Amino acid sequence: MKKKRIAILTSGGDAPGMNAAIRAVVRKALYHHLNVIGVNRGYEGLMNGDFCKMKSDSVAGIINRGGTVLKTARSQQFKTEEGFGKAVQNIKEHKIDVVVVIGGDGSMAGAQKLSEAGISTVVIPATIDRDMPGTEYTLGFDTAINTILEAVNKIKDTAFSHDRVAIIEVMGRHAGHLALMAGIACGAETILIPEVAYNIDSICEGLLHSYNRGKQYSILMVAEGVSTGSEIADQIVARTSFSPKVTVLGYLQRGGAPSAMDNIIGSRMGAAAVDSILLNQVDCLMSMQHGNIVAVQYKQVTEYKTGVDCSLQELASILAI
Amino acid sequence: MKKKRIAILTSGGDAPGMNAAIRAVVRKALYHHLNVIGVNRGYEGLMNGDFCKMKSDSVAGIINRGGTVLKTARSQQFKTEEGFGKAVQNIKEHKIDVVVVIGGDGSMAGAQKLSEAGISTVVIPATIDRDMPGTEYTLGFDTAINTILEAVNKIKDTAFSHDRVAIIEVMGRHAGHLALMAGIACGAETILIPEVAYNIDSICEGLLHSYNRGKQYSILMVAEGVSTGSEIADQIVARTSFSPKVTVLGYLQRGGAPSAMDNIIGSRMGAAAVDSILLNQVDCLMSMQHGNIVAVQYKQVTEYKTGVDCSLQELASILAI
Amino acid sequence: MKKKRIAILTSGGDAPGMNAAIRAVVRKALYHHLNVIGVNRGYEGLMNGDFCKMKSDSVAGIINRGGTVLKTARSQQFKTEEGFGKAVQNIKEHKIDVVVVIGGDGSMAGAQKLSEAGISTVVIPATIDRDMPGTEYTLGFDTAINTILEAVNKIKDTAFSHDRVAIIEVMGRHAGHLALMAGIACGAETILIPEVAYNIDSICEGLLHSYNRGKQYSILMVAEGVSTGSEIADQIVARTSFSPKVTVLGYLQRGGAPSAMDNIIGSRMGAAAVDSILLNQVDCLMSMQHGNIVAVQYKQVTEYKTGVDCSLQELASILAI
Amino acid sequence: MKKKRIAILTSGGDAPGMNAAIRAVVRKALYHHLNVIGVNRGYEGLMNGDFCKMKSDSVAGIINRGGTVLKTARSQQFKTEEGFGKAVQNIKEHKIDVVVVIGGDGSMAGAQKLSEAGISTVVIPATIDRDMPGTEYTLGFDTAINTILEAVNKIKDTAFSHDRVAIIEVMGRHAGHLALMAGIACGAETILIPEVAYNIDSICEGLLHSYNRGKQYSILMVAEGVSTGSEIADQIVARTSFSPKVTVLGYLQRGGAPSAMDNIIGSRMGAAAVDSILLNQVDCLMSMQHGNIVAVQYKQVTEYKTGVDCSLQELASILAI
Repeated sequence: MKKKRIAILTSGGDAPGMNAAIRAVVRKALYHHLNVIGVNRGYEGLMNGDFCKMKSDSVAGIINRGGTVLKTARSQQFKTEEGFGKAVQNIKEHKIDVVVVIGGDGSMAGAQKLSEAGISTVVIPATIDRDMPGTEYTLGFDTAINTILEAVNKIKDTAFSHDRVAIIEVMGRHAGHLALMAGIACGAETILIPEVAYNIDSICEGLLHSYNRGKQYSILMVAEGVSTGSEIADQIVARTSFSPKVTVLGYLQRGGAPSAMDNIIGSRMGAAAVDSILLNQVDCLMSMQHGNIVAVQYKQVTEYKTGVDCSLQELASILAI
Repeated sequence: MKKKRIAILTSGGDAPGMNAAIRAVVRKALYHHLNVIGVNRGYEGLMNGDFCKMKSDSVAGIINRGGTVLKTARSQQFKTEEGFGKAVQNIKEHKIDVVVVIGGDGSMAGAQKLSEAGISTVVIPATIDRDMPGTEYTLGFDTAINTILEAVNKIKDTAFSHDRVAIIEVMGRHAGHLALMAGIACGAETILIPEVAYNIDSICEGLLHSYNRGKQYSILMVAEGVSTGSEIADQIVARTSFSPKVTVLGYLQRGGAPSAMDNIIGSRMGAAAVDSILLNQVDCLMSMQHGNIVAVQYKQVTEYKTGVDCSLQELASILAI
Repeated sequence: MKKKRIAILTSGGDAPGMNAAIRAVVRKALYHHLNVIGVNRGYEGLMNGDFCKMKSDSVAGIINRGGTVLKTARSQQFKTEEGFGKAVQNIKEHKIDVVVVIGGDGSMAGAQKLSEAGISTVVIPATIDRDMPGTEYTLGFDTAINTILEAVNKIKDTAFSHDRVAIIEVMGRHAGHLALMAGIACGAETILIPEVAYNIDSICEGLLHSYNRGKQYSILMVAEGVSTGSEIADQIVARTSFSPKVTVLGYLQRGGAPSAMDNIIGSRMGAAAVDSILLNQVDCLMSMQHGNIVAVQYKQVTEYKTGVDCSLQELASILAI
Repeated sequence: MKKKRIAILTSGGDAPGMNAAIRAVVRKALYHHLNVIGVNRGYEGLMNGDFCKMKSDSVAGIINRGGTVLKTARSQQFKTEEGFGKAVQNIKEHKIDVVVVIGGDGSMAGAQKLSEAGISTVVIPATIDRDMPGTEYTLGFDTAINTILEAVNKIKDTAFSHDRVAIIEVMGRHAGHLALMAGIACGAETILIPEVAYNIDSICEGLLHSYNRGKQYSILMVAEGVSTGSEIADQIVARTSFSPKVTVLGYLQRGGAPSAMDNIIGSRMGAAAVDSILLNQVDCLMSMQHGNIVAVQYKQVTEYKTGVDCSLQELASILAI
């Protein structure tokens, strides 16, 4: 029987845990005597033929590093007919049987398009925002909320020392997972997420109420999809005598040595992807469902709800009384 | 209607996330107008009447601290008839309706005994070992595996620089959860857990094989329930030319600022415990089941399997090829 | 002999290491049987009589916390005649012999004004910017450059993965110490400081040159006193095809558990301040000179050069080739 | 004029900051058009001819990694006449003009022996113990005391929660620098160093006295050169009712991403070594003297006192009252 050839790439925003997934795909595949080709810079590399043979030591010493050793890109050209055609041609010329794509929503769209063109693909979900349909977890999320937590712990020192309202702006254009979960983890008094409209007057009342009760500093966490931190600060300044200070965490949230959970789930998802390929179960997302990793066909991913649990926003405000 | 009075204590080994659970119990209870009494030093404090009234600001600023602000102890006296009787008497004298116990297996046994004596109790699972029946998660585990991961990342620098086998001894007398999950997270070549007998000869063959293939250093993680790190080292020295160096992580594994996950689950479990009490659902463990927190009666906890997934041990060795 | 009464306050921006200095002043003073009064919120507290008796356990468990347990403020009112008068009156009414002020340049100006009004003072230098005359070190600097280093290490993961120029904006309105030292520590390719004019064209040439030589990402560190990170980014975008991403570290730089060095120097300076008081050597700055702590009279502080060593900027660019 | 050829190696125990020094030597040398040869595994590599050409990108991305990319070893063979002869021969065959050695006391002895045999050498001091004559600082020390501080901060959580005496055993066979400085940084109640005899009875009295005054936990730091932590624990158990718990930090202390200070001093010392070579100033130690880096001839290193400042031990006990 002919040995399968698989290609692996990372695409979209980088996320901690991608390296654990790469390592797991490569070594599990080699263990089962598959050939593995690494593609640099995501779909860009697929179009440009930026390929390299992956051996066991190609992935040595990478599990504790953030980002992705295969590098990543957001390719506009791959969305054109010409670019897509070049990618398909390269895949065929190199006799690649399956492409393993590690990335988020946009990357899965690319994989799905390849599948529709007859190229088998498998997706491992990875984006710090956790805003992908079809899976309860995406690699990088746990590291990102821990990074935010550590940053807020530092900012709290200063907020306490100056009796201040500290506003923390975190990532999340369309989904509030990061703000919500990091907010609960750090005991934020107020959490603003795109899924729920906010009322600046009641926020100000809350701050005042807390202050009068003796709470001398507070943390307000806002997802960038709601507003910028400085807009929120301006609104508070216009209504109260507080002088909130804003920190925009920015790219800091993307990096860092992966958390244990991201390395564990990355390893498990990478191994599961290879198992799935060995069973000829392709064109699917490696999905976390109630703690188990299962393969979900692309067509079915939207059947799984993965929205924010908004009751946690209320919990956060109760716990901050 | 009379307001319920609840008492809260932490017992057994301390675990990061206990403070998040204390904060959640106290504030959620106050939000619902319950009275909350803090008991210092676990069952010791229950016997000695070491009580304090908990207000909202009793739990201010504690969520990012490891350990437990209520302190903890392993009480031998509480296991005696006399000690137990004193505890029951104190509970009745203070008109406490429910005792919330945050702790591990032994602490749950104490709570169960109180329940059998007619005192309502609720348990929030907390032990870094994750070796409790009836729940898939115990507070402190995630922080502990991250602490181990960070320590191993440091030790790897030295192991790499000296081409060395590094042996890491971690906690886990009866269960291998910590060693197994931390081992996968840090890419350990070999993981020894109490649930699976080990063969020193095949370990040595593995080390030799790796070395000959060009792997210049490796990590062997061993749960204390298997053997001490130095016994394993001696066995390797007797059979090979390697000179492994041993690190015993010890009490380091217990402390540290809680991870985001421990603070989130601690907050959710604390709130769930109060909800459960409000519904008169007592004498039960707040249990993590497939990502949800549910109340499980003490009598039923043993029905839920929570053993180690030994297939992960094999996965670790495949991923380390 | 009458026991001396000393007061202690922290003023201006908070800095890690302030708590170690507070602890050292309090305990060393108690050891020598002095009385110690804590003043909350800096000169504000001096005016408002916001005083508390400091005992040994007032400073227990604070050495590993950032910020200042005495809180701090930037008081405008203290600069008025009326405010200053109230402070002097409170000091006299409480029979305070010496005021120990922990803070930066502005705080030292306040202490000097008190001295001129006949109130003995001693200053312990503390500001993350290290921009004080008369001392080679100010508490908080070492922690701050380590905080920046850790942040940049995370940002590098993403910059590497995306082949990006990362611009990091750090504190430093008038002095480039933070940018320069943190820049060298993290291996930044380019460091912009207020002390040296920059040439955007040669920066762009440097980036291009590095890129052509195969350097796929680079770090540009800029002190806020030079420009905002986004202005620099705009200038680069206008001249090249790079798309730099900006991170403004902001208040993150102020907080965090103090580094070993800040705790050691804070402890030594706090003890030295008490020794100085016992010798009636007051109205002086506890100054770091070539590794030793010496008392320098306020009038002489400007004699000690503490400017940035600009040759390090050139070193950074040589080491980044 | 002929271009100088320099070789660079790291020897003895690894220390964070070695990579910054390697990077600085290589890039500064290339900037001045010297040729640089990397020697793997210290003097072992010198004997075995394990050489590689160092280019600018040989040292890319290494500054934030602990350990040494050139690897290190403790060579017994180099101390034999035959081994030494092979090393000298290799150096001559490769026409190496100067050997830059990064390491501790033993490594300097090797360099000195080479110098006596007519091979020019320069030493950059690096050992976490800081026990080298002739210099006030050795690379790795600052990172190591920060690593110890972070570990103790975690252990304090548990010690506080259980009202415990925690004993921390740290490195330092002959010198107490690490124990003393880390002990002050973490606020240890008791610090035992090889330079000062200890009295177990007065230690026990101190613990009891603290406990009676309300101090519910304490930290005792002991350098391995004094005794093992468990021997101290046994002595305390024999004399009091305390049950101290011991943590041996071990190899953890050697690794980790370098602190800002180690990277800054490593960079400066590396550059200074090249400057020294360019000036034909060889056979000397790059020495830290009062904050400046100066070249000290091997013969003169013993003239500079670098012993432990034992007054700091007393300071620690005063600050822990």
